[in-house]
Amino acid sequence: MTKRYFRPAVDAMTGYVPGFQPKGADLIKLNTNENPYPPSPAVAEAIRTELDRLRLYPDPTADAAREEVAKLWDVAIDNVIIGNGSDELLTLAIRAFVDAGQTVSFPSPTYSLYEVLVDIQGGVNAPVDFPEDWSLPATLFANGSPLTILSNPNSPTGTMIPPEEVCRLAEGLDGVLLVDEAYVDFAETDCMLLVKQHPNAIVTRTLSKSYSLAGLRFGYAVASKPMIAGLMKIKDSYNVDRLAIAAGAAALADQAHMLANAGKVEATRARLVTELAGLGFETLPTQANFILTRPPEGLTAKDYFDALWERRILIRWLDTPRVRDRVRISIGSNTEIDRLLEETRDILGRDRA
Amino acid sequence: MTKRYFRPAVDAMTGYVPGFQPKGADLIKLNTNENPYPPSPAVAEAIRTELDRLRLYPDPTADAAREEVAKLWDVAIDNVIIGNGSDELLTLAIRAFVDAGQTVSFPSPTYSLYEVLVDIQGGVNAPVDFPEDWSLPATLFANGSPLTILSNPNSPTGTMIPPEEVCRLAEGLDGVLLVDEAYVDFAETDCMLLVKQHPNAIVTRTLSKSYSLAGLRFGYAVASKPMIAGLMKIKDSYNVDRLAIAAGAAALADQAHMLANAGKVEATRARLVTELAGLGFETLPTQANFILTRPPEGLTAKDYFDALWERRILIRWLDTPRVRDRVRISIGSNTEIDRLLEETRDILGRDRA
Repeated sequence: MTKRYFRPAVDAMTGYVPGFQPKGADLIKLNTNENPYPPSPAVAEAIRTELDRLRLYPDPTADAAREEVAKLWDVAIDNVIIGNGSDELLTLAIRAFVDAGQTVSFPSPTYSLYEVLVDIQGGVNAPVDFPEDWSLPATLFANGSPLTILSNPNSPTGTMIPPEEVCRLAEGLDGVLLVDEAYVDFAETDCMLLVKQHPNAIVTRTLSKSYSLAGLRFGYAVASKPMIAGLMKIKDSYNVDRLAIAAGAAALADQAHMLANAGKVEATRARLVTELAGLGFETLPTQANFILTRPPEGLTAKDYFDALWERRILIRWLDTPRVRDRVRISIGSNTEIDRLLEETRDILGRDRA
Repeated sequence: MTKRYFRPAVDAMTGYVPGFQPKGADLIKLNTNENPYPPSPAVAEAIRTELDRLRLYPDPTADAAREEVAKLWDVAIDNVIIGNGSDELLTLAIRAFVDAGQTVSFPSPTYSLYEVLVDIQGGVNAPVDFPEDWSLPATLFANGSPLTILSNPNSPTGTMIPPEEVCRLAEGLDGVLLVDEAYVDFAETDCMLLVKQHPNAIVTRTLSKSYSLAGLRFGYAVASKPMIAGLMKIKDSYNVDRLAIAAGAAALADQAHMLANAGKVEATRARLVTELAGLGFETLPTQANFILTRPPEGLTAKDYFDALWERRILIRWLDTPRVRDRVRISIGSNTEIDRLLEETRDILGRDRA
């Protein structure tokens, strides 16, 4: 195309690169933080029930699902918006709060989609480096951005800022604070109380991780009613389909199933961290369904990634500052993690175990 | 919220108001152009097959579905993008081509979502009135907008601009021409050839109408490869879920089913237009799965709408210039249209039929 049709901001940017999604390959997939366990059986049941109604538009505001969220957090449905994945809610927030030329603040490194969405909007990325201990950066307070985003637990580190600190941040900010809690069901605490205390706070969740529904695209946000009303104005009219509404509501109603799976993942995570420590790996303290770990002296992160890939185990290596000496490993089933450990011992030449 | 968090453009706008979606009410629903017949049986089958994989992310580019589109139109998959409904593709186009303060041109009246999306983006709406005969407005040619949108067949009128005229428009424009063909499977022609001849043309389609999948959210766009590559950069990474990809591909593969349903709808449409003419209604020539019709002298459009609503038949009345003396009626099943005609005769006091 010799002629330029796209906005300069779009021409200038590169798109987000999602983790590799192999098609039908026979491998152990520990690269995009999917849950190794199936979703609640109520999900398939809810989808089957909806199959006869596919010719009809869905409820534009997905109220059946909003009601489940409202019950869960003891808020009104007007405090809730459902998104086509929490990625859509992030997109909506940036489109809602950020004018061209305005900054968006976030600690760095973090989920790289934020920067891409800011670029699309013609905004300016204002990343603030995490300190060495991965605590809340002091300079993030009192930033002038209309929007600050905090991934908590953070990806790709797995580290978490305590809710009291996040509360302090919300109080200190003039603009909106969006707390992306994609991984929080694997953590000890969460920031959902924040939205009851701070009109500038939005908490987003996804069913992709803890509810084992990455294939479905269902996220939600909880915030003050005026905040939700504004986001509602700019979402696509029918942004969530019938099957996702029914399935999402069913999944949310089965808390026991989600909690049991999260518990299993957490137990496997603890075991993986311990075993890797015994092999000389240094792992960041994690509250997510993944770990960010540094291989022992003599094995680079990239070489470890490549060696596992040769053995048909797919993890993630991010060639970006602060984390390129580490790999991110999603917590799979016990069998998958056993294979990972076995191959790791082999790679280290310690397969006498 | 005393404090202003939203962008001024968002504060100033009102959201799009979708047609009323009654919840579980017992009525004849002819207001949002849904298909009265069920989708291909292959759709439910494809969804059932996918239920075991919901814990895994979908293919980010929905290639299984793109392949079906590519086969259908004899293009490469790089000429195709799949959206969460064609509404998402409209949103993407406006975000891709329109900077704040730039205009978007379209004939008017048309699908009111366009104006809302332009408002969200901080763009400027530049509607051009359709002439009396609903042909292509001469002043739409050589407009200076980076994006021109043409709903063809147009909603809410059902009227259609011939492909040769649309070709001439694409040639005359400096910017992008997006032809929204949501209703084209009920028409005699279409503009898909346009994208092979004009690098500035995009044609969008939806499975909501002719494929009976409004509940699913699946649209696609066909355009030149650089055009598709740019749109791909700004879509959400996993914008279409596993079930929609599988179901959409299955629906597209069953052309016979779609064509048979479209044929039934067209036959019912012809009958409805004739019968209404006999009752004194004047209907615009339509190539969509709805009609825009004016009740006879003595019965206003609003009164007709209200009288049908009392009789549990829901149609659409739009209180906007040029069309407020008419109602839009979606083509339902023969039984539904028989009921509509019967109640109409009753309303007119001519129930001697």
